[in-house]
Amino acid sequence: MAKTDIIFQIFIAFTAARLLGRLVSRLGVPSVVGELLAGAILGPYVLGLIEHSQFMDALAQLGVILLLFTAGLGTHVRQLSAVKGTAIAVGVLGATVPFVAGFAVAIPFDYPLTERLFVATALMATSVGITVRVLQELGFQNRKSARIVLAAAVIDDIIGLFVLTLVIGYANGKGNVLEILLLTLETVAFLGFFLFVGPPAINRMSATIARVSRGFFFELAIVVMLAVALLAQYIGLAAIVGAFMAGVVLAEVKQHHSLEERVEPLAWFFTPFFFISVGAYVDFGSFAKPTVLVATIVFALVAIVSKYAGSLLGAWREGKRIANEVGAGMIPRGEVGIVVAGIALAEGVVDTDVYSAVLAMVVLIDLVAAFLIARVYSRGGRRGGDADAASPPAQITY
Amino acid sequence: MAKTDIIFQIFIAFTAARLLGRLVSRLGVPSVVGELLAGAILGPYVLGLIEHSQFMDALAQLGVILLLFTAGLGTHVRQLSAVKGTAIAVGVLGATVPFVAGFAVAIPFDYPLTERLFVATALMATSVGITVRVLQELGFQNRKSARIVLAAAVIDDIIGLFVLTLVIGYANGKGNVLEILLLTLETVAFLGFFLFVGPPAINRMSATIARVSRGFFFELAIVVMLAVALLAQYIGLAAIVGAFMAGVVLAEVKQHHSLEERVEPLAWFFTPFFFISVGAYVDFGSFAKPTVLVATIVFALVAIVSKYAGSLLGAWREGKRIANEVGAGMIPRGEVGIVVAGIALAEGVVDTDVYSAVLAMVVLIDLVAAFLIARVYSRGGRRGGDADAASPPAQITY
Repeated sequence: MAKTDIIFQIFIAFTAARLLGRLVSRLGVPSVVGELLAGAILGPYVLGLIEHSQFMDALAQLGVILLLFTAGLGTHVRQLSAVKGTAIAVGVLGATVPFVAGFAVAIPFDYPLTERLFVATALMATSVGITVRVLQELGFQNRKSARIVLAAAVIDDIIGLFVLTLVIGYANGKGNVLEILLLTLETVAFLGFFLFVGPPAINRMSATIARVSRGFFFELAIVVMLAVALLAQYIGLAAIVGAFMAGVVLAEVKQHHSLEERVEPLAWFFTPFFFISVGAYVDFGSFAKPTVLVATIVFALVAIVSKYAGSLLGAWREGKRIANEVGAGMIPRGEVGIVVAGIALAEGVVDTDVYSAVLAMVVLIDLVAAFLIARVYSRGGRRGGDADAASPPAQITY
Repeated sequence: MAKTDIIFQIFIAFTAARLLGRLVSRLGVPSVVGELLAGAILGPYVLGLIEHSQFMDALAQLGVILLLFTAGLGTHVRQLSAVKGTAIAVGVLGATVPFVAGFAVAIPFDYPLTERLFVATALMATSVGITVRVLQELGFQNRKSARIVLAAAVIDDIIGLFVLTLVIGYANGKGNVLEILLLTLETVAFLGFFLFVGPPAINRMSATIARVSRGFFFELAIVVMLAVALLAQYIGLAAIVGAFMAGVVLAEVKQHHSLEERVEPLAWFFTPFFFISVGAYVDFGSFAKPTVLVATIVFALVAIVSKYAGSLLGAWREGKRIANEVGAGMIPRGEVGIVVAGIALAEGVVDTDVYSAVLAMVVLIDLVAAFLIARVYSRGGRRGGDADAASPPAQITY
């Protein structure tokens, strides 16, 4: 059988991810860690059984889009607006502190300014995808701190992508003020519409929507999810931000529980491919170079500490326990950091060593973060505290 | 937005397929027809919005695998063995008559012998995928005739793939007796195991499986589906034959109804990509050549009439109504015919004109067949007759 056979790669990736995920989960570790490891082991640098091909990328993209969509479906605008102030503070501080820290720490590595800017930008955004999966898996997704983390992680994705646009402009020697203004306006209009206009409108039309879409609401929801993801991508935000917003809006429709039941198997099928894909970027070989190894560890430490500190500060007014949980919950990095590294490599401002270091840093951070989150949150009691009974459990059980 | 953007293509393909599918469905035509048309219109030969890329192919393959898997899940070995004799007669006659007819009709077109053999082979196998979708959609999937069609269509896929192996051997000038013997043995062992050994064994262990796989039966089922599909592909059968067999075996597990509920949204998401993909092969432009146009129409007519006649004959003992329904139900062609044409093109034994004619023939046959099936089956009463209440409805309704 050819290694490049599509069904073979899908089989190997799905099976290994689920198997290693279950295995580490028995040891009390979030299964995301197992899935990331499965990706690293199967990936081009170790076994070479799966590669970064167009179809793997498609499955991974659908995976993270569906993951964020389910997160959005489980999020009600009322819940978000209850944590609005703190989430904004956490999002802004949680993105700024790592940027400044990353920029400062990169100085001794003797990177040129543009390279330093890209590395610092790659540290900014929390991975909404990984954060959501870890929290869902541990059963903490309905805590107040989890809701703050989710909202803040979406906000800092937006900030991270915004800064990325500026850095690319700077790297290309054209800090086009008009473009920046346009991006700002589009972002504000997009978020305003999907947070303030969409949900109440949909809520009011809920009965009509139920009647008209009878028999094809599931299909309609998938179409809306893809459309809003594309819209977000088109205006320069990430597709996942759009998928999350689509979920938030559709959560206002009356049938959203039966919709969640239908979307869940899809999300469960696709998400492992996202984590496999992230894991597959790790080139263990490049750590033979001491500079790469040192850079990876230093960046990871800085990224963890600075994100924790910035987010803790942002959530301080919520009390020590919640602030601590928010700090830990914000640590994971992922899709945005990888996108930043990819663009930097494509623009020729970083070499493959720095690229490898950034990607390995992402995986290293996530391994550490998964442990930290499990530890910090379980201090607050299993599945505990301020859980919101309105949301169904995220785990599939028969 | 780049036309090659993955999410954009997925959005356009899914939306167009569902929209056109719904539209034609309102006109009383099976939505598969709309999905095939959507593929032809969006495809490289008309709008060029989607192309035959690796990820489209992956989604299409998963689509047809999941479709056959759900068909298998809805099929109980007891039901199959009740129609065994007729199904074998229909499968054999329904494959042989089109082969002979296709071979004879190709003579006036002045094709060389190898080309004639390939064209005749392409006419043999009924498309299990399209047949299942049309019957499910119209609500006829539980009739006795539908069960005969399903079993016979799987049998003639196996026959078709078997003959394909022989023809390829002939074309390469090596009719390796040993290889043929090996394929025969493997096929018999595979079918024997999955029809006679697997189901009763699983049935006996049903309670144990339920206990052990608690919480991850859905994932396990997906892994088994992919594994058996790969196994089938590995021994020279089609992946879809394996997916169907995996479904038949898992249908014996106690929780198979909750499994069906989970698999259904997956199948619904993926299958449109299969039909879009088939439709996208149609090059309307090549019909400007009169020979291609004539060949397409003649092949389609011969394929329809010969398959109908052969299958009618095979099912004759079941009485006129059922034989008539089986004849119509067997007409659709698809994946195997396309695979045959693709291999013939790759081996250099047919040119792109013949290739286009075969693919266009497949789509033309399916358009006609969808109408014919709707007409012939509805004479027997809507959703009627010998329906089996044990199987859940195939349509998603909220």
